[in-house]
Amino acid sequence: MQRCTDLTERDLKRVRSPELFTTLKMTDCEGDGSVGLTPLELYEKLSAHGDTIRALKTEKADKADIETAVKLLLKLKVDYKKLTGEDYKAGCPPSDTTVPSDNGPASDEGDDLVNPWSVSTSSAKGVDYDKLIVRFGSSKIDQELVDRIEKVSGQRAHHFLRRGIFFSHRDMHQVLDAYENKKSFYLYTGRGPSSEAMHVGHLIPFIFTKWLQDVFDIPLVIQMTDDEKYLWKDLTLEDCHHFAVENAKDIIACGFDVNKTFIFSDLDYIGSSPSFYRNVVKIQKHVTFNQVKGIFGFTDSDCIGKISFPAIQAAPSFSNSFPQIFNDRKDVTCLIPCAIDQDPYFRMTRDVAPRIGYPKPALLHSTFFPALQGAQTKMSASDATSSIFLTDTPKQIKNKVNKYAFSGGKDTIEEHRKYGGNTEVDVSFMYLTFFLEDDEQLEKIRQDYSSGALLTGELKKMLIETLQPIIAEHQEKRKQVTEDMVKQFMTPRKLDFNY
Amino acid sequence: MQRCTDLTERDLKRVRSPELFTTLKMTDCEGDGSVGLTPLELYEKLSAHGDTIRALKTEKADKADIETAVKLLLKLKVDYKKLTGEDYKAGCPPSDTTVPSDNGPASDEGDDLVNPWSVSTSSAKGVDYDKLIVRFGSSKIDQELVDRIEKVSGQRAHHFLRRGIFFSHRDMHQVLDAYENKKSFYLYTGRGPSSEAMHVGHLIPFIFTKWLQDVFDIPLVIQMTDDEKYLWKDLTLEDCHHFAVENAKDIIACGFDVNKTFIFSDLDYIGSSPSFYRNVVKIQKHVTFNQVKGIFGFTDSDCIGKISFPAIQAAPSFSNSFPQIFNDRKDVTCLIPCAIDQDPYFRMTRDVAPRIGYPKPALLHSTFFPALQGAQTKMSASDATSSIFLTDTPKQIKNKVNKYAFSGGKDTIEEHRKYGGNTEVDVSFMYLTFFLEDDEQLEKIRQDYSSGALLTGELKKMLIETLQPIIAEHQEKRKQVTEDMVKQFMTPRKLDFNY
Repeated sequence: MQRCTDLTERDLKRVRSPELFTTLKMTDCEGDGSVGLTPLELYEKLSAHGDTIRALKTEKADKADIETAVKLLLKLKVDYKKLTGEDYKAGCPPSDTTVPSDNGPASDEGDDLVNPWSVSTSSAKGVDYDKLIVRFGSSKIDQELVDRIEKVSGQRAHHFLRRGIFFSHRDMHQVLDAYENKKSFYLYTGRGPSSEAMHVGHLIPFIFTKWLQDVFDIPLVIQMTDDEKYLWKDLTLEDCHHFAVENAKDIIACGFDVNKTFIFSDLDYIGSSPSFYRNVVKIQKHVTFNQVKGIFGFTDSDCIGKISFPAIQAAPSFSNSFPQIFNDRKDVTCLIPCAIDQDPYFRMTRDVAPRIGYPKPALLHSTFFPALQGAQTKMSASDATSSIFLTDTPKQIKNKVNKYAFSGGKDTIEEHRKYGGNTEVDVSFMYLTFFLEDDEQLEKIRQDYSSGALLTGELKKMLIETLQPIIAEHQEKRKQVTEDMVKQFMTPRKLDFNY
Repeated sequence: MQRCTDLTERDLKRVRSPELFTTLKMTDCEGDGSVGLTPLELYEKLSAHGDTIRALKTEKADKADIETAVKLLLKLKVDYKKLTGEDYKAGCPPSDTTVPSDNGPASDEGDDLVNPWSVSTSSAKGVDYDKLIVRFGSSKIDQELVDRIEKVSGQRAHHFLRRGIFFSHRDMHQVLDAYENKKSFYLYTGRGPSSEAMHVGHLIPFIFTKWLQDVFDIPLVIQMTDDEKYLWKDLTLEDCHHFAVENAKDIIACGFDVNKTFIFSDLDYIGSSPSFYRNVVKIQKHVTFNQVKGIFGFTDSDCIGKISFPAIQAAPSFSNSFPQIFNDRKDVTCLIPCAIDQDPYFRMTRDVAPRIGYPKPALLHSTFFPALQGAQTKMSASDATSSIFLTDTPKQIKNKVNKYAFSGGKDTIEEHRKYGGNTEVDVSFMYLTFFLEDDEQLEKIRQDYSSGALLTGELKKMLIETLQPIIAEHQEKRKQVTEDMVKQFMTPRKLDFNY
């Protein structure tokens, strides 16, 4: 309830900044059905509801039914006015929802651009995540939620949670409520295999997902969207499928339990599971081009594969897409740990879920892992200097950090000693927040660097010494992943779990 | 070559009637790559080629390469001018290609509306098929082709061919050329299962396909688009799948050879065949929303399932969608017998095929089976009085024909005897052209009815006596179709055929 009031106040503020209409969401304190909708979605809901009322009248339906329907229509019109500042007018979609490019819904100058294909910001500190929470209509992972996860799991929270690397969520409290009542859930995460090379940033969701799997003792499905990469990139189907299998080896090396984990390539699994395809078709029936245009910024020149793909990323959110694991049960709740740029897919999924009789998936969102050159962009697998790759040698790691890691230090040693460095923009320090597990040591580094006691070279050395053994250990574990193990993880089968 | 010249003359004529631009196609006598394109497709090709040239210039590509590219651009511009009567202008699509409604590409007043979901005409004689051939850019099945089919197959042509019920084709001569050179082909047809009830009109493609299977001794795949019906109709997935299986029984009752025939439900097979799904994704990558908008009249309010569905109807046109039958060969030519309203799907398929390295499917198009009430519309499975159903009793057949079959006779017996009836609009006579095999008897009926010697009641009696045993025999054969037989036909498996 508290969160609801907070957001409403923020929303009212936002209504005065019309540039944010495209991503502004309704928040639900009244359960009126317009929760989480963009202006365009609410407009479409209104249009459809108008059609329903006309149909009821034509069919000379029961008067009470018509009255109830009209009441809801009026309520929706009030919501629409509240959300857009405009009166609803049939045939005239909200004015601010046009999308200028392929890069997703428009953001005004100064707003960060965050969608599944592009992340950019003008700030060296990186994306403004508090602002993103408001724009996306998700909830902040606050201390109360971290404490609750510790209590329910009986384990100390992972440092990604303690340090706000996983910073936003949807419905995590409901997941925990149910878990406390012996109603379990499953995990779903994924990877778009666009090359053989994975970098350390790609490991973040997997490291955290493994922790969740361990502490909650639940099954996990991992989608390799090789079909997506074929549709978006200039690659062959064979390439994309090969990358899916190669990337799966790095994922397996993170230590997932083969008895509780199913990794699948879309190109293999969709053609092996009538249940999965049925869910894809169900989702595709309930999402219009207008909606994906609004959510993802697709245009008329996009291929029909891109346009329908969001349904394929949505389908694993529903447990009956995996009958071999869940025995055809459709009501097992799904929790999706992912980077926040994937949220548009799951906003769509959550919109569709109740309309096809399935529970909405819950989400845990992470921040982006910064490029060596700075937090303005996500790292790119196609630029070898932008990140530490999982195949890098100790020497390469040392050279890359020393040469490319953006420093928050001062220009001269004298100045640095006097004024101290800025950990908020220093990439080496950011990387340590991801990979140095000891909280006290990290805090000491923060203080020493800020005071000037610690020099940039020394900080970089600490990062290098932290990363080298992690990467070396990963390489060692990956070597032990045999083709047979990959096959086992990627075979649709029963998992070691009973509901 | 002859056909090419003919068509060019027709095209030139058409260019003077701008209302037909939407469906007018380029014909290829020069192999310049603009063959078979609509103005919008050609416009898009030009836009894309412009982008390519700009990219070549930016990359400072080889001068000769740029020159070749520019030459092609100029050639395409000339084609564009020839096709549309307008100069190509970047950013301005051809003016006549906007689509007003859900009902497919616009047709001017007087033009028949023909697309996969709607067929209508203002003429009691039915759709003007000669005009349709020009609009769709297909070729007429002329006496020469009928003679050739007889010669190659060594069998007398089916009466559907002799009487122009299958009236139009694409590339049938190439299919026969190859067959004569011991290069075989396969057949693909389908059905959208929207209800349990099938009517006699639904049998037309199957009766003809069975004849083709018998005379050419080739394999056949039959697609039941239960996913399509779910996307388009207010039905559940379970309903649609059930209808697919029930309809398959009627299809099997037509006498197909189980050793040469694979019937599949999309909802089952797509989830059982990675090869099929891979082809779907390939096709989806090579078709834009603009294209399906132009071809099918989709709008932004259509669900993404409808928008991407055309790829699913296209996929069976490629032999490697059925590795169990064709051993992964991708070069076995496909021949599709279907009603002409399905042609838009295959125009799209033929456009995509060379771009993904597959042969274009060939087609044989049938006219529509008229409703009892007249040839203005296709029959509807949802209107029991519009057609003879495969479940009708002899008495129902008699009553329906007597009560509803639109008559080309005169108002009084005296007038009829004096002026004669009109077989061109008489539905009973039309039905006889479909179901009465004896050419001489049919010709005698035509003469007698036209002269007035035969009265409407007598003509209807002949139709009733022709239909009753056909329907009764179908019902008898359908009864003999067991669940096991259905399962056998619908199991992906090797067919009795070697390439």
